[in-house]
Amino acid sequence: MSGKIFIIGIGPGAEEYLTLKAVNCVKNCDYTVGSARAIDLFRDVKNTIAFNVKDLVDKLEEGVELAVSGNSVAILSTGDPGFSGVLNTVLRISKEKNFSKDKIEVIPGISSLQLAAARNHIQWDNANVMTFHGRENIEDILEVIDNGKITIALPSRKVKDMAQFLLDNGVSENRQVTVCERLSYPDEKIVSTSLKNIATSEFTYMCIMVISSKD
Amino acid sequence: MSGKIFIIGIGPGAEEYLTLKAVNCVKNCDYTVGSARAIDLFRDVKNTIAFNVKDLVDKLEEGVELAVSGNSVAILSTGDPGFSGVLNTVLRISKEKNFSKDKIEVIPGISSLQLAAARNHIQWDNANVMTFHGRENIEDILEVIDNGKITIALPSRKVKDMAQFLLDNGVSENRQVTVCERLSYPDEKIVSTSLKNIATSEFTYMCIMVISSKD
Repeated sequence: MSGKIFIIGIGPGAEEYLTLKAVNCVKNCDYTVGSARAIDLFRDVKNTIAFNVKDLVDKLEEGVELAVSGNSVAILSTGDPGFSGVLNTVLRISKEKNFSKDKIEVIPGISSLQLAAARNHIQWDNANVMTFHGRENIEDILEVIDNGKITIALPSRKVKDMAQFLLDNGVSENRQVTVCERLSYPDEKIVSTSLKNIATSEFTYMCIMVISSKD
Repeated sequence: MSGKIFIIGIGPGAEEYLTLKAVNCVKNCDYTVGSARAIDLFRDVKNTIAFNVKDLVDKLEEGVELAVSGNSVAILSTGDPGFSGVLNTVLRISKEKNFSKDKIEVIPGISSLQLAAARNHIQWDNANVMTFHGRENIEDILEVIDNGKITIALPSRKVKDMAQFLLDNGVSENRQVTVCERLSYPDEKIVSTSLKNIATSEFTYMCIMVISSKD
């Protein structure tokens, strides 16, 4: 009999944003696959398989194979697996290994986009919400940047490069941008300034950009 | 000294989708304002103020006034306060009562749109995500319904009326629609069928519509 795969959103990074369901699910699973940082959030966990950026796909394959052999496997995804998460990758691997999708359950988590909106008191159902993580479609932001709504974006590259791209494509240097860095961590930092200033500032890679609706 | 307001997302309805932060925050607050159903999710809660659809604004005002008088007040919002939630209403009331927005913290929750995406294994960062709860802008869905992406919508009125609106505006009767009803509750129900069939079916009011990208 084959096992089960749970693709679990762990939220932006701090333990307090875990759901009760995520905690219980990891507690009960035979194996937990995730980044070392993600696994560390759980106090009660059985066997662990840690991945890094380089061996991510190998470790996910290992996890799916363990499920094929009858184990219950938790796969941890930063934020929400369905928003810039590992969902599609795990689905692809499971299909390749003939693991039934009926035995895959996705458990949503708090996306960093939601925490960025929360920190800025933004009702994001009326915002442009976009991710460029691991994507090359950066031009898509130009289609919405002047549609009168706030844009919340997970940049694909450095924040300053994204800002420069917007400047190069005619967005005013005075447009206000809020960069939310390392959300939910003790050293979380939120900076609001002009697009021009953002283009010459350095940030870490864990950032969300909140771009105002007009100049 | 004035108190503090926490606007807390409680997720789609089941206790297991609460975050640890939501649980701890309610435990520590002097007052908790929410629907009876929302308050019932919390095992450890001090003073409660329950609202219903009719007295929602009155009770939110009462909650803000308690914060003005120095209390810590948790305001519970189904799903995520920033997605079709009470965020903007609480911000407006707080402004009217001169309660500093610096003393308002928003705690995101799992939106039912996220759980609908999860149940259907959809990576929703590439979907049209829309809410029509309490809004009259239903025509907005026509702008995106044929843009090649899946549409995930919280309908403003009955699901069948929304389906009829789409039919009346030229969407094919064969378009596949999945209706997710009472997500996370024991009687959760997920139905996939044609738009034509949806337009003649009855659902409860707690529904999400997932509309396929093409006919």
